[in-house]
Amino acid sequence: MAERIAGPEIERLVQLLARLPGLGPRSARRAVLHLMRKREELLGPLGEAMRVAHERILTCTTCGNIDTSDPCAICRDGRRDAGILVIVETVADLWALERAGLLAARYHVLGGVLSPLDGVGPNELNIASLMQRVSEGSVREAIIAVNATVDGQTTAHYLADLLAPLGVKTTRLAHGVPVGGELDYLDEGTLAAALERRTAF
Amino acid sequence: MAERIAGPEIERLVQLLARLPGLGPRSARRAVLHLMRKREELLGPLGEAMRVAHERILTCTTCGNIDTSDPCAICRDGRRDAGILVIVETVADLWALERAGLLAARYHVLGGVLSPLDGVGPNELNIASLMQRVSEGSVREAIIAVNATVDGQTTAHYLADLLAPLGVKTTRLAHGVPVGGELDYLDEGTLAAALERRTAF
Repeated sequence: MAERIAGPEIERLVQLLARLPGLGPRSARRAVLHLMRKREELLGPLGEAMRVAHERILTCTTCGNIDTSDPCAICRDGRRDAGILVIVETVADLWALERAGLLAARYHVLGGVLSPLDGVGPNELNIASLMQRVSEGSVREAIIAVNATVDGQTTAHYLADLLAPLGVKTTRLAHGVPVGGELDYLDEGTLAAALERRTAF
Repeated sequence: MAERIAGPEIERLVQLLARLPGLGPRSARRAVLHLMRKREELLGPLGEAMRVAHERILTCTTCGNIDTSDPCAICRDGRRDAGILVIVETVADLWALERAGLLAARYHVLGGVLSPLDGVGPNELNIASLMQRVSEGSVREAIIAVNATVDGQTTAHYLADLLAPLGVKTTRLAHGVPVGGELDYLDEGTLAAALERRTAF
């Protein structure tokens, strides 16, 4: 009975929406009912935006970002310093750094981190293309901006070892207390790093 | 800078997805990246399912359910007892009752509850059409299945008063301890109702 209450079209929409991260069957049903109420303002435009995205969006063959052009807008942007290459795990991380708007550099998206238990070795990541880019000579500094997880840091050390012979300066993000963070909620590793690298007023 | 990182098509998709209940800007971005990774299995089909839904889905003029036909499948279903009418606040509540599969009745969706502070009076709800349906004579029992909130219960009493002169039996859902519920977490009103209506083993 449950499968037939609202017609196969609605049921299919619920099932597809439930596959998005952050949505389960219940929230997908709520989302569908919301879409039905906002048919012209939201359901129509969203379907159209998905069609357009499906047709036009590409993965940049240079850096691994997604965009409607290849190379992507960041790789084509002449105002960015091609000498600084920020290496990130995912496009989400690239977006996070771009939203912060802290540096006008280029990126390289690894597509994940080394994780032998999950069968992710160097060949599963965009490491060959990274070496290729760096060996072309224009990169002065490679900022390894991977997550501060065990797999992330393993990957960072692996990349630093690979990059060392190419004569490029390799850096990584600092550890410390997050801005607005409360000491009581931080792990010992973070506190140790923050203490060790304490700075003068 | 933040608005231009990934092209207007992706930004538009993020903004539209962020308007779904349960998704904010951050989870909408995660959803878009997930859609990009699952382009053929998810992005394409989801866009198409939304287009189909936008084209075909109607609100049933009899009961207020949504479906691809009007009257909806429930209103057309001859195996259901037209003598029992379940009055619910929203289509989501109708779906919840149908999923439970407890009764083969007809429904009437109010479209909300009375809420004078929010400007929702009887004219803003599907109450005229409810009176019309009940006065046609085939309804024996009206089950007022609104939420156990203050506004819901106010609406229930209002409807019971309206329905009384029509000679239809009017009932409402029982209060009590939810199945699996722990007494320690229940409010006093629920405990009082559960005690008062206690049943013999």
